[in-house]
Amino acid sequence: MDIYGGEVNRLIEELSRLPGIGPKGAQRLAFYIIGMPEDQVEALSSAIRQAKQNTRYCRECCTMTDQELCPICASKTRNHRLIMVVENPRDLAAYEKTGKYEGVYHVLHGAINPAAGIGPQDIRLKELLLRLHEDCDELIIATNSSVEGEATAMYISRMVKPAGIKCTRIASGVPVGGDLECADEMTLLRALEGRVEL
Amino acid sequence: MDIYGGEVNRLIEELSRLPGIGPKGAQRLAFYIIGMPEDQVEALSSAIRQAKQNTRYCRECCTMTDQELCPICASKTRNHRLIMVVENPRDLAAYEKTGKYEGVYHVLHGAINPAAGIGPQDIRLKELLLRLHEDCDELIIATNSSVEGEATAMYISRMVKPAGIKCTRIASGVPVGGDLECADEMTLLRALEGRVEL
Repeated sequence: MDIYGGEVNRLIEELSRLPGIGPKGAQRLAFYIIGMPEDQVEALSSAIRQAKQNTRYCRECCTMTDQELCPICASKTRNHRLIMVVENPRDLAAYEKTGKYEGVYHVLHGAINPAAGIGPQDIRLKELLLRLHEDCDELIIATNSSVEGEATAMYISRMVKPAGIKCTRIASGVPVGGDLECADEMTLLRALEGRVEL
Repeated sequence: MDIYGGEVNRLIEELSRLPGIGPKGAQRLAFYIIGMPEDQVEALSSAIRQAKQNTRYCRECCTMTDQELCPICASKTRNHRLIMVVENPRDLAAYEKTGKYEGVYHVLHGAINPAAGIGPQDIRLKELLLRLHEDCDELIIATNSSVEGEATAMYISRMVKPAGIKCTRIASGVPVGGDLECADEMTLLRALEGRVEL
């Protein structure tokens, strides 16, 4: 029996399309939304529509922004000769939060993943190559340390090294403040390989 | 530095108001939504608005529905003399999924919780009392077995018993298929108290 009626079901269905939201979570969210004051519901609904309509990719670094150039690429205080390559805008946000990185970014919007049919042409690599025609002191590859992230890092380094561009990879190892016994074997081995002299 | 621009921030902010969605989850959802095809974004945005606009409380049982009477209350095959009291529409959905309950429901939309300032007048108890003027064979109280749910169950039973209405409470105990060693002490004690002869 259809216990809620069409509109509620439609909302549950739309919400459960979102990543990380299962059928139960969608139900919970739907009832919460229906119970919210009307102006808040309107704000949510229009924020979704507006963000989609007014967001584009930064002409330079391909992150999402509402200007032609994102605030970082438009900034004159950043070092535009230092480019950090990340998989997505959330990774960019994570590094921005450290407040210590002074270069600019390049957002790939994904990583090479042959198993999922995502090849080099499906992520923003062409845009990265076009940027490298300008002066670039160093390309820091900060893709995730997953299989896909590593493959992408390897691909990029092979692609840009012939042009004589310095290409580095962020370190992987035991997280700061993390327990050694909680780290997986791969991480422990990486931390060992990447050891530095004190 | 504002790294995304206004529209994206507004969406992240609106999403993080929802229950169970933290700042990081909201960011992830926002970028996912912006990356969705335009028609899907439109569908989500309008489903939110429409569900809010067209959903009301069932005149009888107070669940959320798009009709004056929800499909369960409108059904002639259900036993309208058997009423199960639940805290919210999700609990109703959970019992409906069993497919075995033939009575109707009453949705309280909450539980009595003095610590949070939620008293008997803040949940749909008045509506329940009004229904009980009609013939009712049994009132099954299926509020959660939390402190608030138990307090609400107690309150209702004291409220309706003087009227001579049979009032029962769903059993609490060790979940079916659950490991005894995983159950907490309160559950084990409840299961012991509620033991039945074989």
